[in-house]
Amino acid sequence: MKVRVGKETIFEMKLIHVTIWNEFIHERTEPKVASIYPKGIHEAIASGIGPYGFRIQTATLDQPEHGLSQEVLNWTDVLIWWGHLAHEQVAEEIVDRIYARVLKGMGLVVLHSGHRSRIFQKLMGTTCDLKWRSDAERERLWVVDPSHPITEGLGEYFEVEPEEMYGEFFDIPAPDELIFISWFQGGEVFRSGCAYQRGLGKIFYFRPGDQEYPTYYNKDVLRVIANAVRWTATAHGAEPVYGNTSPLEKFNGDV
Amino acid sequence: MKVRVGKETIFEMKLIHVTIWNEFIHERTEPKVASIYPKGIHEAIASGIGPYGFRIQTATLDQPEHGLSQEVLNWTDVLIWWGHLAHEQVAEEIVDRIYARVLKGMGLVVLHSGHRSRIFQKLMGTTCDLKWRSDAERERLWVVDPSHPITEGLGEYFEVEPEEMYGEFFDIPAPDELIFISWFQGGEVFRSGCAYQRGLGKIFYFRPGDQEYPTYYNKDVLRVIANAVRWTATAHGAEPVYGNTSPLEKFNGDV
Amino acid sequence: MKVRVGKETIFEMKLIHVTIWNEFIHERTEPKVASIYPKGIHEAIASGIGPYGFRIQTATLDQPEHGLSQEVLNWTDVLIWWGHLAHEQVAEEIVDRIYARVLKGMGLVVLHSGHRSRIFQKLMGTTCDLKWRSDAERERLWVVDPSHPITEGLGEYFEVEPEEMYGEFFDIPAPDELIFISWFQGGEVFRSGCAYQRGLGKIFYFRPGDQEYPTYYNKDVLRVIANAVRWTATAHGAEPVYGNTSPLEKFNGDV
Amino acid sequence: MKVRVGKETIFEMKLIHVTIWNEFIHERTEPKVASIYPKGIHEAIASGIGPYGFRIQTATLDQPEHGLSQEVLNWTDVLIWWGHLAHEQVAEEIVDRIYARVLKGMGLVVLHSGHRSRIFQKLMGTTCDLKWRSDAERERLWVVDPSHPITEGLGEYFEVEPEEMYGEFFDIPAPDELIFISWFQGGEVFRSGCAYQRGLGKIFYFRPGDQEYPTYYNKDVLRVIANAVRWTATAHGAEPVYGNTSPLEKFNGDV
Repeated sequence: MKVRVGKETIFEMKLIHVTIWNEFIHERTEPKVASIYPKGIHEAIASGIGPYGFRIQTATLDQPEHGLSQEVLNWTDVLIWWGHLAHEQVAEEIVDRIYARVLKGMGLVVLHSGHRSRIFQKLMGTTCDLKWRSDAERERLWVVDPSHPITEGLGEYFEVEPEEMYGEFFDIPAPDELIFISWFQGGEVFRSGCAYQRGLGKIFYFRPGDQEYPTYYNKDVLRVIANAVRWTATAHGAEPVYGNTSPLEKFNGDV
Repeated sequence: MKVRVGKETIFEMKLIHVTIWNEFIHERTEPKVASIYPKGIHEAIASGIGPYGFRIQTATLDQPEHGLSQEVLNWTDVLIWWGHLAHEQVAEEIVDRIYARVLKGMGLVVLHSGHRSRIFQKLMGTTCDLKWRSDAERERLWVVDPSHPITEGLGEYFEVEPEEMYGEFFDIPAPDELIFISWFQGGEVFRSGCAYQRGLGKIFYFRPGDQEYPTYYNKDVLRVIANAVRWTATAHGAEPVYGNTSPLEKFNGDV
Repeated sequence: MKVRVGKETIFEMKLIHVTIWNEFIHERTEPKVASIYPKGIHEAIASGIGPYGFRIQTATLDQPEHGLSQEVLNWTDVLIWWGHLAHEQVAEEIVDRIYARVLKGMGLVVLHSGHRSRIFQKLMGTTCDLKWRSDAERERLWVVDPSHPITEGLGEYFEVEPEEMYGEFFDIPAPDELIFISWFQGGEVFRSGCAYQRGLGKIFYFRPGDQEYPTYYNKDVLRVIANAVRWTATAHGAEPVYGNTSPLEKFNGDV
Repeated sequence: MKVRVGKETIFEMKLIHVTIWNEFIHERTEPKVASIYPKGIHEAIASGIGPYGFRIQTATLDQPEHGLSQEVLNWTDVLIWWGHLAHEQVAEEIVDRIYARVLKGMGLVVLHSGHRSRIFQKLMGTTCDLKWRSDAERERLWVVDPSHPITEGLGEYFEVEPEEMYGEFFDIPAPDELIFISWFQGGEVFRSGCAYQRGLGKIFYFRPGDQEYPTYYNKDVLRVIANAVRWTATAHGAEPVYGNTSPLEKFNGDV
């Protein structure tokens, strides 16, 4: 749609298309998790970021092609990923399809235990392993890059409690932009908000969100996810051409 | 202003406020330059990026406070800087004022010979020296980070000709994001599009734009400047608090 | 071995163990290549960097386990990789073995067409595609990070001619440290010296070295490879522990 | 000196020349500090890193030229800096002299309250402000880049207690390499080990070391400082040439 501002300026407005993917197993097999997220984590996130003005659909592991047909991915500007128990059940073909879309510009927001998903590992080039402890402790996320759009609307820090702990060393490439660092009661720290570029695509990893805690109702967590959707959806350049190429300049006496 | 999309979604739209600063000396003392930029480089840039929908004003060296009163800077979301002959005539007080505004979130786009401006040197922490040659040669700027919003609307490369040459080593800190690399006929390369974060602010250095050539009428150059304005104007987080601070957690038996 | 300096200071000196891997096909099937590298590219490199004082062995594709048994890799401080025609013939098991060793601290120096090797792609998380042209042109590599040890002993730039051209966009993650940028006669540029960290390991990608040209007799090219061996062999920290972990601090009333 | 290894290999060994600078005021005016560091912080550091095999001298604020004549700086491979009360008493001329030496390749290790020194601010381009609290708490420094030589010989983390707290936001440019993150009892985190490149020089900022605590007797702290001396002393490339330059290639019909 087009929006006219004053007499001359016209903005082309395009709603960001978001697909929220969830493996959707804990919520259907564990009463505790079901009581927190009765419709699934994906629906909680969809409700939580809806007011920010995205066009949202969801997809889950048990759907055909895990709900991620080529058509769905082509529609998608930003894919949000939550997985934990079933990383190995995600078909390699689907992983490759997501990978190709990211390199061609689709944004990817990987949440919490998605750190060990095959798509994240494939894009990072490392194991993405870490330390963890599920002991309902307090996490305090400090902003260490307040110039980044993902920090809009947040304070200098925000807290999530209770939460699972993730601790360093987190086996990722050094982030292109490190945005949050978490403090945990048990004595650990963690690089909690990590931004990366791959091909034409932008990727954001965000730590909080264990299935056992109501983290995806936390307003700061939702704000970060919404900001991350906007940032990973920002414009990119032209698709590169690879392979054998003719010279742009004459040399060696060529005419 | 607010824009309603469909029934519920409301976007707060805010035009980006841009101040284009030019030392405005070449254009008033050299007929060749005056013939290319009769109203000054600042007006050429203002006309060129106007269609992208910014609120624009200009400022020049000879104005009181170089046209950069605190009020003007407070109004400004993004400051574009062109200077060459008179870096030393820019008052230290004004440099400090710009510096403080950048650290609090104002965007800064430094063009061409602005590499040796006091404000850019102060923000970089290096001399920002380089090699140069004014020989009307061909420059080809290659996109090396097509994921970056500053590359929107460009091809894989674009050319500017004729132009002055700038060559490596360019004494800058390694850019947070390196976006363009230039090829020159004479055999040199240059990091031509460099993005930095300082405090809450974003900075973009863009190489082309010698006063002797009509570079600021080149549509790709203008597109990059417009994209850079948008990128440096993106949201930032809360202003940090510094100094002595009370603990957020009890320890050592404190209550 | 130990070296005593003055009365008290003792240095532990350890020769760096280097394994040079080459697929070794061109040299045995193409007379032109055989005439340049009669014993293979691996032997040319071994001779060329020998004077820098490394303990060197070589390995080739046709050996059992491609010459890269676990024992060989455990012995190896730095692995140099040259491959081109046969990336797909390198067994996945061997790729995984190298990958694990890099993450535990082995250095890796990837040369030229090794950009499409499975080990490099796996560590980068991208396709590592690029433009190319085999037209015997002049390449000039400019130093853009003279603070880096890999630039020791070089001038501001050095030339390799004739060489194949590699051009941007090079589909790699933004290097942790970008050290060389190449200029080509045909009008392209390329990020020719790229340093990365993965786990405990350091990786260096170096562009020159097409099989059709005598590049591995060029003293600057050899100097870069020797410097890269030293840099990727520098010390690293302790091996991380991953998984479930106990808190280091008491909280929630725990004692 | 030269060292022969086996029959042929010769290493040129050069002891690293270290100058430890200290403002040396607290130790002469405050009994508590004097009791911890009776000969001054500089002498404690000199003793602590001596066994690592450096050639060490010290310099203090009250000496002529603050002990940092051009001759001393030319001798110096790595300058260690500790200051707190008297940043403004360091003469601008001396700051400029250090700055010039860093850009030409001298290493710089800035300790603790040196974050607000004029030389560090000038090299960073930011205020380097932070939060602080002197409450004798426990600091735990986690290694977040175990590939870096500065982490050699350390565990996954080490503790310093008691110490002053420094908390985010720390107003520095995003480090080129972030090596340590601190956890504090009071609930804060801090980027405690930050590596930068400027010109030919390497810089390392290391957080611990308040004058009120015996931090510079801690073996891990000393190990980090010794490692940082080695890293900032590693080789660099040729000194760049700046200014007007002739083309390396013919163009525009030039012969």
